[in-house]
Amino acid sequence: MTAPVLALDIGGTKLAAALVDPHGHVERHTRRATGGSGDAEALYDDVVSLLDDVRDGVDIVGVGVGCGGPMRWPVGEVSPLNIPAWADGFPLRERLTAVYPGCPVRLHNDAVCVAVGEHWRGAGRGLSDVLGMVVSTGVGGGLVLGGRLVDGATGNAGHIGHVVVEPDGPDCACGGRGCLESIASGPAVAGWAVDRGWRSPGATAQDLAEDARAGDAVALAALARAGSALGIGIASAVALCDVEIVVVGGGVAQAGAVLFSPLEAAYRRHTKLGFARSVSVVPAALGQQAGLVGAAALIHAGDRYWSAD
Amino acid sequence: MTAPVLALDIGGTKLAAALVDPHGHVERHTRRATGGSGDAEALYDDVVSLLDDVRDGVDIVGVGVGCGGPMRWPVGEVSPLNIPAWADGFPLRERLTAVYPGCPVRLHNDAVCVAVGEHWRGAGRGLSDVLGMVVSTGVGGGLVLGGRLVDGATGNAGHIGHVVVEPDGPDCACGGRGCLESIASGPAVAGWAVDRGWRSPGATAQDLAEDARAGDAVALAALARAGSALGIGIASAVALCDVEIVVVGGGVAQAGAVLFSPLEAAYRRHTKLGFARSVSVVPAALGQQAGLVGAAALIHAGDRYWSAD
Repeated sequence: MTAPVLALDIGGTKLAAALVDPHGHVERHTRRATGGSGDAEALYDDVVSLLDDVRDGVDIVGVGVGCGGPMRWPVGEVSPLNIPAWADGFPLRERLTAVYPGCPVRLHNDAVCVAVGEHWRGAGRGLSDVLGMVVSTGVGGGLVLGGRLVDGATGNAGHIGHVVVEPDGPDCACGGRGCLESIASGPAVAGWAVDRGWRSPGATAQDLAEDARAGDAVALAALARAGSALGIGIASAVALCDVEIVVVGGGVAQAGAVLFSPLEAAYRRHTKLGFARSVSVVPAALGQQAGLVGAAALIHAGDRYWSAD
Repeated sequence: MTAPVLALDIGGTKLAAALVDPHGHVERHTRRATGGSGDAEALYDDVVSLLDDVRDGVDIVGVGVGCGGPMRWPVGEVSPLNIPAWADGFPLRERLTAVYPGCPVRLHNDAVCVAVGEHWRGAGRGLSDVLGMVVSTGVGGGLVLGGRLVDGATGNAGHIGHVVVEPDGPDCACGGRGCLESIASGPAVAGWAVDRGWRSPGATAQDLAEDARAGDAVALAALARAGSALGIGIASAVALCDVEIVVVGGGVAQAGAVLFSPLEAAYRRHTKLGFARSVSVVPAALGQQAGLVGAAALIHAGDRYWSAD
């Protein structure tokens, strides 16, 4: 029995870690808040302490990490948009390699890890060509083509959040215009509804989905707009990459039919070529563990998911 | 010295064949009209007779074919949109295999062959991640990622002509709406200009480019619209696939600055992420021979460009 991977998922609001065995089973899953001190070393200390707690002396075969982008890859110097403490760039892979001598440490974009997790042990299992997406605070993704993770020239393949779905659409956080993320991310969806009079204590995308299911017209329109944008972006990606399935995860994607029905309608309206018509768009199977499972697969199934060094 | 490949390029208006050596040099390049009899066997006889003329008894290592899509791949049953004689499907690869016993016969989409040719011996040579495009009667392309041709699940990867660039845009020949091809193909560009009063004896995209260079306002606007659509489609593809270079060939792409300047402007407006900003969009280097060179590469460099059987 091969030892587990120590897997880590670093997001803007939470750090998560677990031991993940070669079957993709998650053990000792632990989370804590990312913390807001803004100090790079303090955040790193939190990460190492979380990893120590989860590992607890168990033998491991490596450390797999998913982290918000952008990053220099494969060197693993991260500068996540939503983690101010590391905004100037933090050499995460190098630092962790020093903590775990003799162990491979592999790191990729967190949305790429979700796509990998869903391909390895989730909704895309056994297929060769899969687009995995995360619709959450941002919109990201990863591509598995011919059974292998596509890294792209700089490790940034899979950025479906910056596919253009409305050329004269909203300004995007990236500086561009009309990107999928500028319409379909959680904050974009909720913000659009608030601007049109929707009120809710938290004003999150989750609240919005609840109100939509209860029949709120503005909430329904907001999710219809996001779903339509997702359908257009997915149609473009499928035409270009000829995948068999598109797996959509992340908090916003948990809205269910109020999002997926307009998504499907827009996808069908823009997808008429035979090879693309047979593609299904399905919800992710692994839920919030997908990123950890995918981070572990960078080690456990490195032949398919790790092409660097 | 390895023997040449007998290469064949089948389009709606012309058949082209040549011998292509392992360096990509093209010899005995011969063309003839595709012919309009509408008879499947008559067209096939023309193809075989052209191949016989070009081969002229020379030893070959295989036969490489580019053909208009769609097709069932890798079995190679073609049903090109613009070749009525084969509209119901013609088993081209199987038939040619019977004519050349003992020789591999490999076949791919004609735009994929252009992309392969430009990667193997053209503007993308030596790079790992390349999008090659053809902007002509249609808009097509092919993807080389990690140094290898991406086929996709059904051999249809690279269909950038059906990336959505204007969600409420024109109806597309594919049945969808606002596809890049519906705006930037030669007939679409010329048709848009004719609808706005542009007059020219042939009314081809080449005539349009000449008039644009001479300052005709409608011709300039038509190519600006097409260039902008291309820039948006390319921005989406680069975000998703993280290529290093985009190579644009085909007759429309020969328009030069009147097309490439608005293309570049739209690409820059929609491309702000660091990894994508450094991507260049360049004209193809091999001209009209790119498809034949790429078809030959399916054999000469099959380790990179041929993943089937």
